[in-house]
Amino acid sequence: MINVNENFLKLQAGYLFPEIGRRIRAFAAENPKADIIRMGIGDVTQPLAPVVIEAMHKAADEMAHIETFRGYDDSGIGYEFLRQAILENDYKARGVALDLDEIFVSDGAKCDIANMQEIFGIDNIVAVTDPVYPVYVDTNVMAGRTGPATRQGGYERIVYMPCTAENDFVPELPDESVDMIYLCYPNNPTGAVATIEQLKLWVDYASENKAVILYDSAYETYISDPQIPHSIYEIDGAKEVAVEFRSFSKTAGFTGVRCAYSIVPKALKAYKSDGSAVDVRPLWARRHCTKFNGVSYITQRAAEAVYSPQGTEQVRSTIKIYMENAARIREGLIRLGYIVYGGINAPYIWLKTPDGMSSWDFFDHLLNQANIVGTPGSGFGAAGEGYFRLTAFALPENVKRAMERFADI
Amino acid sequence: MINVNENFLKLQAGYLFPEIGRRIRAFAAENPKADIIRMGIGDVTQPLAPVVIEAMHKAADEMAHIETFRGYDDSGIGYEFLRQAILENDYKARGVALDLDEIFVSDGAKCDIANMQEIFGIDNIVAVTDPVYPVYVDTNVMAGRTGPATRQGGYERIVYMPCTAENDFVPELPDESVDMIYLCYPNNPTGAVATIEQLKLWVDYASENKAVILYDSAYETYISDPQIPHSIYEIDGAKEVAVEFRSFSKTAGFTGVRCAYSIVPKALKAYKSDGSAVDVRPLWARRHCTKFNGVSYITQRAAEAVYSPQGTEQVRSTIKIYMENAARIREGLIRLGYIVYGGINAPYIWLKTPDGMSSWDFFDHLLNQANIVGTPGSGFGAAGEGYFRLTAFALPENVKRAMERFADI
Repeated sequence: MINVNENFLKLQAGYLFPEIGRRIRAFAAENPKADIIRMGIGDVTQPLAPVVIEAMHKAADEMAHIETFRGYDDSGIGYEFLRQAILENDYKARGVALDLDEIFVSDGAKCDIANMQEIFGIDNIVAVTDPVYPVYVDTNVMAGRTGPATRQGGYERIVYMPCTAENDFVPELPDESVDMIYLCYPNNPTGAVATIEQLKLWVDYASENKAVILYDSAYETYISDPQIPHSIYEIDGAKEVAVEFRSFSKTAGFTGVRCAYSIVPKALKAYKSDGSAVDVRPLWARRHCTKFNGVSYITQRAAEAVYSPQGTEQVRSTIKIYMENAARIREGLIRLGYIVYGGINAPYIWLKTPDGMSSWDFFDHLLNQANIVGTPGSGFGAAGEGYFRLTAFALPENVKRAMERFADI
Repeated sequence: MINVNENFLKLQAGYLFPEIGRRIRAFAAENPKADIIRMGIGDVTQPLAPVVIEAMHKAADEMAHIETFRGYDDSGIGYEFLRQAILENDYKARGVALDLDEIFVSDGAKCDIANMQEIFGIDNIVAVTDPVYPVYVDTNVMAGRTGPATRQGGYERIVYMPCTAENDFVPELPDESVDMIYLCYPNNPTGAVATIEQLKLWVDYASENKAVILYDSAYETYISDPQIPHSIYEIDGAKEVAVEFRSFSKTAGFTGVRCAYSIVPKALKAYKSDGSAVDVRPLWARRHCTKFNGVSYITQRAAEAVYSPQGTEQVRSTIKIYMENAARIREGLIRLGYIVYGGINAPYIWLKTPDGMSSWDFFDHLLNQANIVGTPGSGFGAAGEGYFRLTAFALPENVKRAMERFADI
């Protein structure tokens, strides 16, 4: 008899976005003329850079001729031209030395983050921030690394580390021993960043406790403060304890194109139950090559183009549009008396709901009074209650209109 | 302390293709002028169809403008335009009715096959054919569904079902009870196909034993015999017991573009340990949407174009090239007295090594005497010993030259 993986049955319904959708539909049905502005979604809206489009056309044409056609990417881990560009621009330029075969090109940071846990044992204790990007949690539930759901909206066996204004949205080191630590900076949803000193504490913790840090750096391109690290590997000792995830999605608008990469350093070790050390990189290489078949050649050429001088310039001007949105939202809200976090080094603005309103009450208030959609902070975890997320990815004219409406409520 | 998934340590080295590479390099080093013809690789060589290239250019241009730019594929399971084309052309046209949301678009059949096992329990007994595509086995090893490697080159707890000339390369029903049955027809590596009657036995077995069939139909487009089913769903009752995997890789030359799909019917059930039935489709939907973020919009438009009247015609003429290669190899070898299987409904030719040679001895013989590379059958499993695989994907002029050389050894 075919048995189901019963861990899947522990998963709670994907509550947040379906519920947002339900409330929007109900509101729109009652208010058919309402002009709703959506600032809840984490998807980009600006088109791809011209140099990226050009690279895709060129690569497509190569695929049309027998002499230049490309089939499987035999390396299994991405074409060298792209890994070389990543190495030079994203790491060497920031003083981080890596080997080319420590870079694994993939079709999405979400996929990599979701899959990376597979190479680790099922008894490891997972630690996540609260609020948190749900994928870190759900994939560990599916794998069986958690107990059942709790009444607080979490899962047993997961260590939730509250991130609030009191700790600058960077968690304190846990009291209990944890093994797999998910950190994301610049943070989704809070828009917070972590300093070298803050991350150093975590690297040292991981080193002392033989833990691994799963570092999600998908939003690094939004960092404007030169003091803030873009990579966990800017912290001494991180290569021994951390994997890093990066994406072209938010950097270069590739949400519909699909390209990302992970760094798995050769220095990273995990342990057998007898305590002996095992190299992690070969395990990920084996997983990647067995269960994945590479990224489209056309997409890899498109990603390479992001690093060209023109590409760098064009992508930067798109990021500027989003960060002008973020500044407009942030400053507008501050002028109106809101307490606001994020939006300086991240495309997310995390605001304290006014008058002690709950996250969902503020959602309804904003939708009803201003026809603006955001995301209730409590949807990202218990510690997000009383907060609210706005994203900077809307079109600038809509952001301007939204801020006028905020002034009227 | 971060523990490794020790199941990964059971995996045997990816022996086959690295060993082939090692022997080729050694031969080439000693024979620098040898003109080696490669007929071992399962990758396509013909360029993409013109209509596919055109669709990619058009889609890339859409991504260049704010009005037509596409970010995330919100459905999570593929754009409806592509799922509709799949439904109409690959299923309805063959009398199979499906719902649109039973189709899940992905970036590769290998990925889907590798990932699908996740939604099933760890105690299920896996059955595979021998010889077998190694991904079915390795992914179950990683998941912990097997014991350690055996001296025969397999893994404990996996049920290997020998496929030889004696049973037309379609396995007999197993004596013991099995839960997850991997079948691939047209078959890699043997080139065999399964009839309606043969598959009906398996569907009935699965139905009686509450097992699930994981049906890999990646080569269905090579079927020339009108009596042979292209889909497991052409067999009555299959929707209750089978998942099906399809790919654009071998159909339309997408090995470097990455697009595939899986069918998970709503009628398919798996069971909790208490014996109660659970719908499988929602579990796969949850897995797919949590751990994967969709296929490039450009790629999905390219795949859609394969189904246009022009696309159908252009793709057919490419398949014709490969199948003329297959016929040339097959007929050439038969004329030379070889015992040959496959090559009629599949791009693989499976031959009996002459004079009782072992698979690897024949590999060396062929490389040394004719400078031709193929794949030793024993590399796909113990029952492949004494067989040898040639693929039809080489360029036609190379196939012609290879057959002249075969005549001389």
